[in-house]
Amino acid sequence: MNDRNGGVLYLLPVPLGMEPVEVALPPATTQRIRSLGRFIAESPKTARAFLKRLEHPLPLQEISITECSEHTSSRAIADLLGPLREGHAVGLLSEAGVPCVADPGALVVRAAHAEGIPVEPLVGPSSILLALMASGLSGQSFEFVGYLPVPPEERAQALRRLEQDSCTRGGQTKIFIETPYRTGALWESMLSTLEEQTRVGIALELLQPGATVQVRRVSEWRDRLSLAVLQEMKDPRAVFLLSAVPSSASDRVAGARGGKATRDKGKGQKVVHRMRRHHGK
Amino acid sequence: MNDRNGGVLYLLPVPLGMEPVEVALPPATTQRIRSLGRFIAESPKTARAFLKRLEHPLPLQEISITECSEHTSSRAIADLLGPLREGHAVGLLSEAGVPCVADPGALVVRAAHAEGIPVEPLVGPSSILLALMASGLSGQSFEFVGYLPVPPEERAQALRRLEQDSCTRGGQTKIFIETPYRTGALWESMLSTLEEQTRVGIALELLQPGATVQVRRVSEWRDRLSLAVLQEMKDPRAVFLLSAVPSSASDRVAGARGGKATRDKGKGQKVVHRMRRHHGK
Repeated sequence: MNDRNGGVLYLLPVPLGMEPVEVALPPATTQRIRSLGRFIAESPKTARAFLKRLEHPLPLQEISITECSEHTSSRAIADLLGPLREGHAVGLLSEAGVPCVADPGALVVRAAHAEGIPVEPLVGPSSILLALMASGLSGQSFEFVGYLPVPPEERAQALRRLEQDSCTRGGQTKIFIETPYRTGALWESMLSTLEEQTRVGIALELLQPGATVQVRRVSEWRDRLSLAVLQEMKDPRAVFLLSAVPSSASDRVAGARGGKATRDKGKGQKVVHRMRRHHGK
Repeated sequence: MNDRNGGVLYLLPVPLGMEPVEVALPPATTQRIRSLGRFIAESPKTARAFLKRLEHPLPLQEISITECSEHTSSRAIADLLGPLREGHAVGLLSEAGVPCVADPGALVVRAAHAEGIPVEPLVGPSSILLALMASGLSGQSFEFVGYLPVPPEERAQALRRLEQDSCTRGGQTKIFIETPYRTGALWESMLSTLEEQTRVGIALELLQPGATVQVRRVSEWRDRLSLAVLQEMKDPRAVFLLSAVPSSASDRVAGARGGKATRDKGKGQKVVHRMRRHHGK
C-alpha cells in the first residue's frame, strides 16, 4: 500500500504511426510499457491496440486504462492519481509520439508535481523535434505554437505575425502543426502569404514510408510546383516550419516597434553566439 | 559513384550521458550508426569514444570522422558533403542528444537541402523535450531560446523579458540551458528575479542516476530551500523552464504595449483550444 518506490508516473512515447517499434522506441521504453498494468491515455481504444501490437504480457482485460482527454475535469485528473498515491506505477501513453507535447497529458503531470509524485520521462519519437532536426533551420532558438486559426484571413494574419516575430528574433524557427485534411490548405496559405525570401519547410509522414522533409525559400517553392508532392499523398500528417530572414522590408517593420524589437534581435544573436559543446540536448 | 540511393545524410542522436544505449536509442538508430563508415561530428574524439562504446564493427582507423564545429566555414561545410554527392551515406553525430538542436549540425543539413541531398532524422533523446514532457508546463506552445546572457544584470533582464513574453502568450513555456558550472548562478538569478507566482522548473541529469525534474512557483521554491538539491550535485547538467501566469500586475505591463499584446494573448488561447487527437507529435 505504501510502497512509494513504485508510485512513479512514467511518460511513455509510442510510435508516430505504423513504423516498427524498433524504429521508434528504445528497448528500455518498450520494456517499461510491457512492465506496467495501469495506464492513462487520451483514447483507451488506441492505447489497447498499441499494447496488443507490443504483445504486452498481461491479458488485455487485466490492464487498467483510464481516459484523460482535454475535457477531463481537474477533479477527475486528481482521481487518476489514486493508484500512484497508493504506490502503484502508472504509465501516461500518448496517442502518437511523446506525451505532454500538443496533448492534454501535461495536466496529469502538473497534478503529479503538486502532490510530489515522481515523474519519469522516457525516450521516443517527436515529429516536431524530428522535423526541426531535419529542416536545417535554427535549432538554437525555436518556437512551437501548436495549431494556427482555421479561418483563412485569421490564418494568414497568424502566419504574417509568426514571420515578423521570426525576423525580429534573428530568424527564429517557428513550428506548427495541422490536422491532416487541412495540410493542403495551410500549405497554400503559407506560399501565398509569406515573403519570397522566407524559408518554409514541410515534414511529411515522418518515420513512415515516403517520409520527406523539404525546406526552401517561398520563391523557390513557387517555381517548383511544390504542391505536387502533397497532392500525391492523401491527407499526409505534416509538421510545418518557417524562418524569416531580416530584409530591408522586414527591418522597417521591426524598426517601427521601437526599442523592444532591437533588444529582442540582440538577444537572438546572443543565443546564436553562445553555442556550447558537451551539453546534453 | 552515382549510386544516389546511398547518398543520404543520417541525423544520429546519441545518449545524453552515460545512460545505457538501450535507454537512449531505438535499435534502428543503433544499427544505422553501426552500418556507417563516414561521420561528421562536433568533436571527432568524443565521436570515436562513442563508436567504440557502441562496438562499431569497423576498425576505428577505417572510420572517417570529419569535424564540423561552430567555427567551420561555409566553404568547408560544402566540402563535407563530397561523399554524399558521390553516393555515400554519411552520419551526422551529436555530442549529446539529438543533432541540430543547440549544436552547429543545422548548417550541414541546410547545405544538404540546398543540393537536394536527402536527409533522414533518427529517433533519440533530447533533454529539452524530456524536460518539457516531465515539467507539466504547457506543451501546446513553447519556446526554446538556448543560452541566456552571462553578465548578471543582462541575465536578469533576459529572464524578466521571457517571463513577460510567457505571460503575454497565455503562459507559454520558455526553455533554456546553461553550461553545467553556471547552473547554480542561473538558478539563484531565476528565484531572485522572477515573480512569486511564476512557475519555474529545473530538470537535472536526465536519464542519469539521480535524475530529477521539479517544478514549483517561485514562492514555493523559496520556502523549500530549493538550492539544497543543486548543492549536492556537482555542476549538474540542467534544463530550465518557466511559465508565467497572467496576474493583475503583468496584465498592466502587457496592456501598456497596446494592441499587439492583446492579439498575441488571443492567439495563445486559440492554440490551447485547438488540441487535436491522432496527430503524430
